[in-house]
Amino acid sequence: MIEALAWKDDCLVILDQTQLPERVCYRQLRRLEEVYEAIQTLRVRGAPAIGIAAAYGLCVGMRQAAANSREEFFSALEDKARCLASARPTAVNLSWALAAVQRHLQALPAERVADLEKHLLAQAAALHEDDRQRCQAIAEHGQQLVPPGARILTHCNAGALATGGIGTALGVVHLAHERGRLARVFAGETRPLLQGARLTMWELAQAGVPAELICDNMAAALMGQKQVDLVIVGADRIAADGSVANKIGTCGLAITAHYHGVPFYVAAPLSTFDLAASTGAQIPIEARDGEEVRRVLGRVLITLPQAPCWNPAFDVTPPELVTAIITERGILRPPYAQSIRGMGL
Amino acid sequence: MIEALAWKDDCLVILDQTQLPERVCYRQLRRLEEVYEAIQTLRVRGAPAIGIAAAYGLCVGMRQAAANSREEFFSALEDKARCLASARPTAVNLSWALAAVQRHLQALPAERVADLEKHLLAQAAALHEDDRQRCQAIAEHGQQLVPPGARILTHCNAGALATGGIGTALGVVHLAHERGRLARVFAGETRPLLQGARLTMWELAQAGVPAELICDNMAAALMGQKQVDLVIVGADRIAADGSVANKIGTCGLAITAHYHGVPFYVAAPLSTFDLAASTGAQIPIEARDGEEVRRVLGRVLITLPQAPCWNPAFDVTPPELVTAIITERGILRPPYAQSIRGMGL
Repeated sequence: MIEALAWKDDCLVILDQTQLPERVCYRQLRRLEEVYEAIQTLRVRGAPAIGIAAAYGLCVGMRQAAANSREEFFSALEDKARCLASARPTAVNLSWALAAVQRHLQALPAERVADLEKHLLAQAAALHEDDRQRCQAIAEHGQQLVPPGARILTHCNAGALATGGIGTALGVVHLAHERGRLARVFAGETRPLLQGARLTMWELAQAGVPAELICDNMAAALMGQKQVDLVIVGADRIAADGSVANKIGTCGLAITAHYHGVPFYVAAPLSTFDLAASTGAQIPIEARDGEEVRRVLGRVLITLPQAPCWNPAFDVTPPELVTAIITERGILRPPYAQSIRGMGL
Repeated sequence: MIEALAWKDDCLVILDQTQLPERVCYRQLRRLEEVYEAIQTLRVRGAPAIGIAAAYGLCVGMRQAAANSREEFFSALEDKARCLASARPTAVNLSWALAAVQRHLQALPAERVADLEKHLLAQAAALHEDDRQRCQAIAEHGQQLVPPGARILTHCNAGALATGGIGTALGVVHLAHERGRLARVFAGETRPLLQGARLTMWELAQAGVPAELICDNMAAALMGQKQVDLVIVGADRIAADGSVANKIGTCGLAITAHYHGVPFYVAAPLSTFDLAASTGAQIPIEARDGEEVRRVLGRVLITLPQAPCWNPAFDVTPPELVTAIITERGILRPPYAQSIRGMGL
């Protein structure tokens, strides 16, 4: 399986996803600013993956900090965590990972900065490994929702490229393919940044999974022709009531699936749940530059140069449209306020 | 108002819509093959406009034919009509216009080929003028559905560029703007060929109508934020039960509007109704080359070069999702089987 990111030769190495599928290009990130830039410009992306990248980003950043004491170390760590957390606002895994690393380190009695740095790296690596296992568990639980010969529609990329493991939504797909239960995946291209066309189609081709690309607006016609058995997507943040913030376009897919009686599943690790958000209205939605809509892949201008564009990066799917949420601990069913509370997060 | 096509200097002149908005480029079409190519490659497009273009195409084609008798004339006319009708299968206005011209000519007693040619041109011009008036009437009837300060979402381009007049769906918009009832238009970009981004945004800018571009997959979020008062689209063919074939993405919009309680209107002249199709299932849907999905505007490759793509040009919206159909004779309401029959077409 491809890897979105790794710690290697004392720095964070990422597969630069802005270059895919044209070029498979790895980048070594040795400075906090580079990690911040990589997250913000989506060189590394996907809610779980940016959490892990940020944890490694702290390691990179603390080398630059040259702290002289435990106090200086934690003060600098907090600054850098705050900076990284601000790179993207919607995916809660980012701030979750940064908080988890800080909490863990503060609980350690280590005094020497060198020891703290060693623990920091070990903790980032542990988060990475932890996510790998969560993906595996999600994929395993998800199998019970995949009928034999399944034709699955997905949106954006919630795969190996978006996580530290085999993916969330695509993790379920990869495992179903391995077990011979999959007929075909349909990937929505995911305008404006085309993660479905560029990343999911590439990732599935790498894994030998039969896949077909559609424009996002074709999903209703596809479902109307009974060509989709289930929809499965990832998530960037899930509120306490089961509202799901995910890539723009997800909510429209959920409405369409509901209309056509097609099950709509969300696959996400527990780090994606934000119980501080009681409803979807409390999830901040990242607004990105209209130029991403006007100019495809930064190259072809598709409208008037100054055309006003609306470009929210995410939308919120209301819980009544979500058939089930697949987590590493099992499958949550409505009513989500109860089933999520029952997880004891 | 801009004009999509005109008869000028003894040939058909079209505004080449594949070049918009980058270049405003007119083409003179002097041969049947050129008209066929222009329709098939969408240089001229929109259900009513391709009907008119085809009628003028017959004029162009009959000059090439050099018929020597009434019999030869009608035999050649039929051949050429058959050829033009095959350029695109879904919009019924194309075959409707060709049949109307043939019927009209056959009813005339003229024997001389030169007279028949003159009548043919007059008939094409009459169809053109007729469509202009139908657009005006549709726009007028549509005003009763537009609340003051309306925020309207549309899809593809059903404007002056798509008709012989001010448009169908955009005709309603243009007139609402003229009368100061319009706050804003949202244009769905309309993948894969981006008629919304390229054509609607350009047409509205020419007319000074405030417009904002969205990706097709943003409509659900936009409606969820209560930013849309109504959706209005054109149509390529309407079946006897009120099923509406229109640009791919229309059905998903209708489902989304229904979920959010936003009225969903279709504006189309009576030439768009096909009573021979009793339901939407009987409307042929044009399948286009996957390369249109893979390569944006024929230029930027957005996925793997050989990625399988599904590319239907149209979808069918079931009648239960259509709030009303605006025609030149007034507004049709459900149940459409009855209200359409009541038109006595």
